Amino acid sequence: MKKILVLGSTGSIGQQTLQVIADNPDLFQLTGLVCNNNVQKLEEQINRLKPKFVGINQKGVSLNQELYQEIKFFYQEAGILEMVKSLDYDLLVMAIVGAAGLKPTLAAINRGKDVALATKEVMVLAGELIQRNKQKAKIFPIDSEHSAIWQSMRSGTKSEIEKVILTCSGGPFRSTPIEKFSEITVEQALHHPNWKMGRRITIDSATLMNKGLEVIEAKWLFDISESQIEVVVHPQSILHSAVIFQDGSMIGQMGVTDMKVPIQYALTYPQRIKNNYPRLSLTDIRKLEFEAPDTNKFPCLRLAYEVLKSGGSLPTVLNAADEIAIELFLKRKIVFNDIPILIEKVINKHQAISSPDLEEILKVDSWARKTALDCANI
Amino acid sequence: MKKILVLGSTGSIGQQTLQVIADNPDLFQLTGLVCNNNVQKLEEQINRLKPKFVGINQKGVSLNQELYQEIKFFYQEAGILEMVKSLDYDLLVMAIVGAAGLKPTLAAINRGKDVALATKEVMVLAGELIQRNKQKAKIFPIDSEHSAIWQSMRSGTKSEIEKVILTCSGGPFRSTPIEKFSEITVEQALHHPNWKMGRRITIDSATLMNKGLEVIEAKWLFDISESQIEVVVHPQSILHSAVIFQDGSMIGQMGVTDMKVPIQYALTYPQRIKNNYPRLSLTDIRKLEFEAPDTNKFPCLRLAYEVLKSGGSLPTVLNAADEIAIELFLKRKIVFNDIPILIEKVINKHQAISSPDLEEILKVDSWARKTALDCANI
Repeated sequence: MKKILVLGSTGSIGQQTLQVIADNPDLFQLTGLVCNNNVQKLEEQINRLKPKFVGINQKGVSLNQELYQEIKFFYQEAGILEMVKSLDYDLLVMAIVGAAGLKPTLAAINRGKDVALATKEVMVLAGELIQRNKQKAKIFPIDSEHSAIWQSMRSGTKSEIEKVILTCSGGPFRSTPIEKFSEITVEQALHHPNWKMGRRITIDSATLMNKGLEVIEAKWLFDISESQIEVVVHPQSILHSAVIFQDGSMIGQMGVTDMKVPIQYALTYPQRIKNNYPRLSLTDIRKLEFEAPDTNKFPCLRLAYEVLKSGGSLPTVLNAADEIAIELFLKRKIVFNDIPILIEKVINKHQAISSPDLEEILKVDSWARKTALDCANI
Repeated sequence: MKKILVLGSTGSIGQQTLQVIADNPDLFQLTGLVCNNNVQKLEEQINRLKPKFVGINQKGVSLNQELYQEIKFFYQEAGILEMVKSLDYDLLVMAIVGAAGLKPTLAAINRGKDVALATKEVMVLAGELIQRNKQKAKIFPIDSEHSAIWQSMRSGTKSEIEKVILTCSGGPFRSTPIEKFSEITVEQALHHPNWKMGRRITIDSATLMNKGLEVIEAKWLFDISESQIEVVVHPQSILHSAVIFQDGSMIGQMGVTDMKVPIQYALTYPQRIKNNYPRLSLTDIRKLEFEAPDTNKFPCLRLAYEVLKSGGSLPTVLNAADEIAIELFLKRKIVFNDIPILIEKVINKHQAISSPDLEEILKVDSWARKTALDCANI
């Protein structure tokens, strides 16, 4: 039995993780749940899955201990860190949105605990730091693209990898002419063609910043250079990503758009366990298309490569400024086109720090958020 | 240094194998060459590569020993078998066309020598026999489809395989209406859209018998059931084949249509060695299409599944009758449509033998060839 601690259980990835755990009661045991503030969903999960340990991140949010006498509750950042540091588990599923995933991930790998990672910000902000610290622990990607790369890599050795092909749906505005970009509404941007996801990642998919963050994540997850990572637009999202080995063979992972498959793989690795999730039929799909991304239309992708090349604290700035830009866009305070402009302004104001530690990263993160708000003049 | 003995060196696969060997002089040493009767090409290869041992299969064909005093020559079936049984080599490359590959392959694996196999008839005629005999030796596929399956299988274990997707270009008549099939000329049938190959395999690609033979080959190479093998038509021939694992992940190998890549992989396995062969660019290809094969138009594919299900000596009958039918078609004695009809006639006349030994297989092979000629009334 693998004991699993799920951080971010009420989000999309968290819920699907609980489904995979429930589908395999002989393999997995749920150690505990952590959510941010969705207590309604949390109570439903507690009643269904009976965890012994539960964490709630947001200050002031709690459940009635009287109703859950068998549960030990933990609260806010410090409580959740205590869970990660003290509980008995084999695998941490990290599915908290944003920079909040950073400290718990570091705490887990410092204990030598493996982490199944859905929170891309962890690698974006602290990829280098994680690499330095993960000696005893392993990081298993949950993102469908990175899972695809990870699965494809098994067909050769790490040193035989020539290139990684990171596929990208192209988002809802792949075919929209650049002249129309300033008219893009929040509602249009929130409508992703292939995946149903959270709000930030959906907007990031529309600007291709999501793919940029994934390029950064791939670099640190797989210890490859950014020049080895090529983004290819693939509107059907069937080829989830691929690896080209130095002998010229490309190995790719394909599947339907069901996150339970990469989640299950991260939970059972290196085994592949039978399930009854829907199968891919190439003859039903009929057509897979590919094209190069247009970085004139989607400057966020270019910015991601640029900060990755410079390295140090710059990816943290990119991520933080992007989060603020999206918030402002969702509040209709800036337009779609302003998102990359605002991010680039903040990047240009930053004095990069090389090999930042956790405190420096968090300071830069705060600085970039504040600076983004300043730059937007709001 | 891996010492390699190449059987069928003057054919398309043989020539490309010699290219791969020449491209990697630090890795490979050519032990010897065997050809059927193309002495012009053979002399060119001898002068270029200086092998110590050379075999010529066809009776009455020889080179002037005076000119090649440092070479030991072997002649005809018995001589070639002696080479396989007595020479010092690490890997046999089997690229002889047709049933003639059978005895040398068995001789090699009985010595515990690994075989890189391009001759699909070996597995079609004697798959079960080979499986029983190969305890000490391994068979490495060279066929692009089987190499793709073999490479994709590395992403899981054998018992985790749910299904194999064997892709098929569809041949030159994929879009030809069935009503026009009786008018197909030899010239049209010899023109394959994606691969330049020998005459028999080109016609087999036009009838889809080639894919049927590959289904049989896949069953024995990978020890899977025919019900686990699905043929999918893919006109671009970029996805060379794929494996669906029981967790729902499909892993596939992609590449340009260059046989040197699977040849090199078979020669260097499990390593992947750097080369400068052309790379696949998905953004140049732009589109991959898939459809189900039409077994009404291509009954040869149905026949292959049927003989595989029945097993025993029936695949030998299928292969031999197909070879004769193609010869008759190339000589314009029967029309394109007659190929599957003639094969089915011979199959229906056969009294199947279960688990045939080598002598029985060769007897059935002769019987089927004779019967095919009888059935064609020529």
